[in-house]
Amino acid sequence: MAETGAGATARPRTTVEALQGFYRRAFEAVELPTADAETVARVLIAADVRGIDSHGAPQARGYARMIRQGLANPRPNIQTVSEMPGTLVLNGDNGLGPVVGDYAMRRAIDKAREVGVGTVTVRNSNHYASCFYYPLLAIEAGMAGMTMTTSGPLTLPTFGMAPILGTNPYAIGFPGGNDSPPFLIDMATSAVAMGKVGIYRREGQTLPEGWTFDEQFQPTTDPERARWLNLLGGDRDHGSHKGFGLNVAGDLFCGLLSGGRYSAQVPLRGTGPLETSHMFTAWKIDAFVPVEEYRARFDEYTTMLRDCPPREAEQRVLVPGDPEWAEEVERRRDGIPLHPAIYADLQGLATELEIPFIG
Amino acid sequence: MAETGAGATARPRTTVEALQGFYRRAFEAVELPTADAETVARVLIAADVRGIDSHGAPQARGYARMIRQGLANPRPNIQTVSEMPGTLVLNGDNGLGPVVGDYAMRRAIDKAREVGVGTVTVRNSNHYASCFYYPLLAIEAGMAGMTMTTSGPLTLPTFGMAPILGTNPYAIGFPGGNDSPPFLIDMATSAVAMGKVGIYRREGQTLPEGWTFDEQFQPTTDPERARWLNLLGGDRDHGSHKGFGLNVAGDLFCGLLSGGRYSAQVPLRGTGPLETSHMFTAWKIDAFVPVEEYRARFDEYTTMLRDCPPREAEQRVLVPGDPEWAEEVERRRDGIPLHPAIYADLQGLATELEIPFIG
Repeated sequence: MAETGAGATARPRTTVEALQGFYRRAFEAVELPTADAETVARVLIAADVRGIDSHGAPQARGYARMIRQGLANPRPNIQTVSEMPGTLVLNGDNGLGPVVGDYAMRRAIDKAREVGVGTVTVRNSNHYASCFYYPLLAIEAGMAGMTMTTSGPLTLPTFGMAPILGTNPYAIGFPGGNDSPPFLIDMATSAVAMGKVGIYRREGQTLPEGWTFDEQFQPTTDPERARWLNLLGGDRDHGSHKGFGLNVAGDLFCGLLSGGRYSAQVPLRGTGPLETSHMFTAWKIDAFVPVEEYRARFDEYTTMLRDCPPREAEQRVLVPGDPEWAEEVERRRDGIPLHPAIYADLQGLATELEIPFIG
Repeated sequence: MAETGAGATARPRTTVEALQGFYRRAFEAVELPTADAETVARVLIAADVRGIDSHGAPQARGYARMIRQGLANPRPNIQTVSEMPGTLVLNGDNGLGPVVGDYAMRRAIDKAREVGVGTVTVRNSNHYASCFYYPLLAIEAGMAGMTMTTSGPLTLPTFGMAPILGTNPYAIGFPGGNDSPPFLIDMATSAVAMGKVGIYRREGQTLPEGWTFDEQFQPTTDPERARWLNLLGGDRDHGSHKGFGLNVAGDLFCGLLSGGRYSAQVPLRGTGPLETSHMFTAWKIDAFVPVEEYRARFDEYTTMLRDCPPREAEQRVLVPGDPEWAEEVERRRDGIPLHPAIYADLQGLATELEIPFIG
């Protein structure tokens, strides 16, 4: 553990290995089998290394508490509900989301290997950390991948005054080319994810307009007052009906096609089993086109994006995923900076579980 | 043909049957086989009846001209490029988009019937009219459906000053319940579709901020000066990276997975064969859950949306698709109102083709 950085942004850094090892110890301490503790650690660290500071370290203590409070099952018996050659519905038996999600995405990949495309829906799971992790598994298998998930109801529908929608995020990934890293997006269909509001709150920054509502459902830019989320698009003229449509589609793909809960049925964390629903799809690239052709054209396409003349001299057009790949290189080299509040939270977890802290 | 409406909005109305019959005659006149002319007519009228006034009647003359100028093939031999049980790549042989798209979506549905999910990608097609038509075919088969398409490069990437992206729309549909019509969304991943800018131009209305750029890539709200489109989200704080990510995913799903053109490779209409690429996916509902359970839960879910307290007394929370189902009921009863410019355009087409005009 080293203190790095200068000025106001100085914060403790930990190596990837040390933090990942701590996660593994923590989840073994709450009785997960070693392989599953390793999976949870791998999913959380994937967010930490890519700079998704809301979905790695800040989730660890909450996940462990869900187990300790009996709200999630450390040793789930994941079962098949229904199956066809290209599709599968799983009951996650209230396992931790990363354990259930990792298993389900791998099953979708297996199906895509057999028939070209595979879709797996899941009921009775939990918060599964960063969405992008799951299409990343597809990318590692030479496939395109997509996932969606339900989540606690924090979002107001267009024209509505009750939080009946989740952030219902989508992630989509495609393998890279010979010279280009993969394409990877991970986006809430709300204007923003609540984790990001938490980052603004910790940093004492004002929120952009159109992101959040206060307890009385009135627009607010104060992160201390922000209680509910707006949809992607913000208002009708700027596409809130599109955010709304994608959000509802997420409920239908995950909740209705799994026979599980949609977001409005997911309780706030800590009040009962979440029974989150997910959807995973994988597409085998060479079911469609030869892999070499795909790689060459991916390079050609991403070069076209990067070569686009920028609006301002200091800007450049990015390929979705680029900032996170760059962040990963830096953090694997320099370590992961942890906000003091998150660092303290992890220290608290080590104390709670009576395990050694980050080495 | 009747003149209806009052005041400034008075415009000619035609019955659904008369307009659909006119489309059929027009496409038979340009040498499409009768069944294919009927398909084009069915796809165009689907937009007209649902109030999508940019994608029905305004497309007819352009499609016929593409055939007459030798830019599209009236009698395509659609061929399989590669196939697995759940996937298929088709070469559309430069047929009209609705002919190729209708065939491809039906093949995706066939595959979903066999293995639960089916994805078909298409190269060498053309503009396929309204996206929503294709998931509607899935809905009619008791399935969920999704489509995306490439399109001419009219959209600027975030931070970029060249039109290298299409509007790359997505449509997603789910079957309805016992008491609720289907869920159906159709959305450009640009801030708006160019057809909608055309409607503002015809109506002499100012565009909302953040939709368009002028010839010099500067923001404009003047529909006469609007030349290029912004992305869904508008700016970084409001999610333009999400619009950008979905847009690029559309290029990858359609262009790269078909071995066909991505949007930047599609020429502006009238300058050469478009060689548009598409993607279609169908999911068989009862591969996942029993249909009766699905229908009951769809009713429960959509009732929850409709019962959400509205922000203003005169507003209500809608289910995506609701306004278009209501429009369809009204237009099937009262006829389809045509803007005078579109009406004149169709008259011109009748003259060009020497066929009887709308009866």
